[in-house]
Amino acid sequence: MLARPFPIIRTIDDLSQPEMDVLAEESPLEIRLIFGQNDHREEKALSVTMRTPGDDMHLVLGFLFTEGIIDQPSDVLEIRHCEQTPTEAKGNVIKVWMNPHWIWPRQSMDRNFYTTSSCGVCGKSSIDAIHSRCSFSIQPINFQHSLLGTLPEKLRIAQIAFKHTGGIHASALFDLKGNLISIAEDVGRHNALDKIIGKAFVNNQLPLAQNILLVSGRLSFELIQKAATAGIPVIAAIGAPSTLAVDLAKKMNIKCFGFVKENRWNDYTPE
Amino acid sequence: MLARPFPIIRTIDDLSQPEMDVLAEESPLEIRLIFGQNDHREEKALSVTMRTPGDDMHLVLGFLFTEGIIDQPSDVLEIRHCEQTPTEAKGNVIKVWMNPHWIWPRQSMDRNFYTTSSCGVCGKSSIDAIHSRCSFSIQPINFQHSLLGTLPEKLRIAQIAFKHTGGIHASALFDLKGNLISIAEDVGRHNALDKIIGKAFVNNQLPLAQNILLVSGRLSFELIQKAATAGIPVIAAIGAPSTLAVDLAKKMNIKCFGFVKENRWNDYTPE
Repeated sequence: MLARPFPIIRTIDDLSQPEMDVLAEESPLEIRLIFGQNDHREEKALSVTMRTPGDDMHLVLGFLFTEGIIDQPSDVLEIRHCEQTPTEAKGNVIKVWMNPHWIWPRQSMDRNFYTTSSCGVCGKSSIDAIHSRCSFSIQPINFQHSLLGTLPEKLRIAQIAFKHTGGIHASALFDLKGNLISIAEDVGRHNALDKIIGKAFVNNQLPLAQNILLVSGRLSFELIQKAATAGIPVIAAIGAPSTLAVDLAKKMNIKCFGFVKENRWNDYTPE
Repeated sequence: MLARPFPIIRTIDDLSQPEMDVLAEESPLEIRLIFGQNDHREEKALSVTMRTPGDDMHLVLGFLFTEGIIDQPSDVLEIRHCEQTPTEAKGNVIKVWMNPHWIWPRQSMDRNFYTTSSCGVCGKSSIDAIHSRCSFSIQPINFQHSLLGTLPEKLRIAQIAFKHTGGIHASALFDLKGNLISIAEDVGRHNALDKIIGKAFVNNQLPLAQNILLVSGRLSFELIQKAATAGIPVIAAIGAPSTLAVDLAKKMNIKCFGFVKENRWNDYTPE
């Protein structure tokens, strides 16, 4: 499933109405390897990645190859989705049976991966994990939705590096009157947000309970997770949110707006 | 440093000329933690992230906080760039001295991080690591540059999920005549590319020595790394490349084009 319908409120030129929108599907995929000699086979969770379901076999093989974990198709005996996962995680765990000649390449495997101990990942468990970890309870706030349309231009003016390169992400924090409080740019969208939150953190300004966050691109689960951790109640994006981003925003009481332009935006968390 | 100038060849309406362009800076940052009781202090590398330099302290604090590794500013005694790094890695290693009361939170620390054993990361060492790992030597190929302008429309037509959501990345593989060979969509740009490469891998089609790759967004180091691993000689992007992406492309003999539109594109790897 590449996409999923969501109820939204679409605002265009001061006119707001409920509609259905279609969001890109995002859900976790855990990769588990079964390897070793015939009488000493063991199973290990290698990584969890957030992905759009579909083409999972190719995704996993491409990942294993480009990360230097396998070299040739014969390194893999078999690859299929785990059948013992609970219903809600169905299709989110993939098992790779390695050829006995294949050896765990210590060097590569330390890189960039996320390992879990349980064979049961699903969007719900990812959301519950964030929910239980966040120390701030987010309360709804009142603000003039019309100020959303003014934020992209303020971001554009403040984006020094984007002006020169046309190729860098930004996060910006505003107060409830739409004044720019801080901005950060980075090639990584999560880094730009970490810079904003880190600055507020070191200045003892958390939770950011009276602020609006604007991000330059799309809204992933990871960005909502970081914003939730900082207690931010309103998140707006120039681009689109994913399904799991909106699911998490709803659970955390965060208002989430996407495709924000001067005269239009979508509210992905209507009451 | 947020950006760096690069010599390019800009093509507009069949007219090509050399110019300087400015690219968003991307370089690795290693985070090292010093923690433990006063007489049992130890130092560990926590992660390496690709980031745009500047605001590193805030980036690191935001990262540590949003990933659940620290809870309050007093968890950290001091934070500064490592002074013993070699010149070329200057500014790319940051050390965080934790308050003795702080304890390594096993659960969180397993998540999503990239650890290395050496206190010396720089763009050059990242590039060398990829260079030494790639099994295919990439040879330059001849193709009609004018076909670059035809690729974005072919990608757009094939992007089923983007049509509905407006919020999903894509990678597409073309032959040297501009025929679409395969396409994949995903909320993660690296996943979309892994899907393309995984499909070719399992069908024994590597190296992709006679192909052109088009990606829907920006070109990061990670995407060039994956393409290099699959032996792809030409990479085109709808968006902008980063500095480290172009540095790696040059080292690997990969032609790299950015801001590709119907009648214009930039060549970031002119002879």
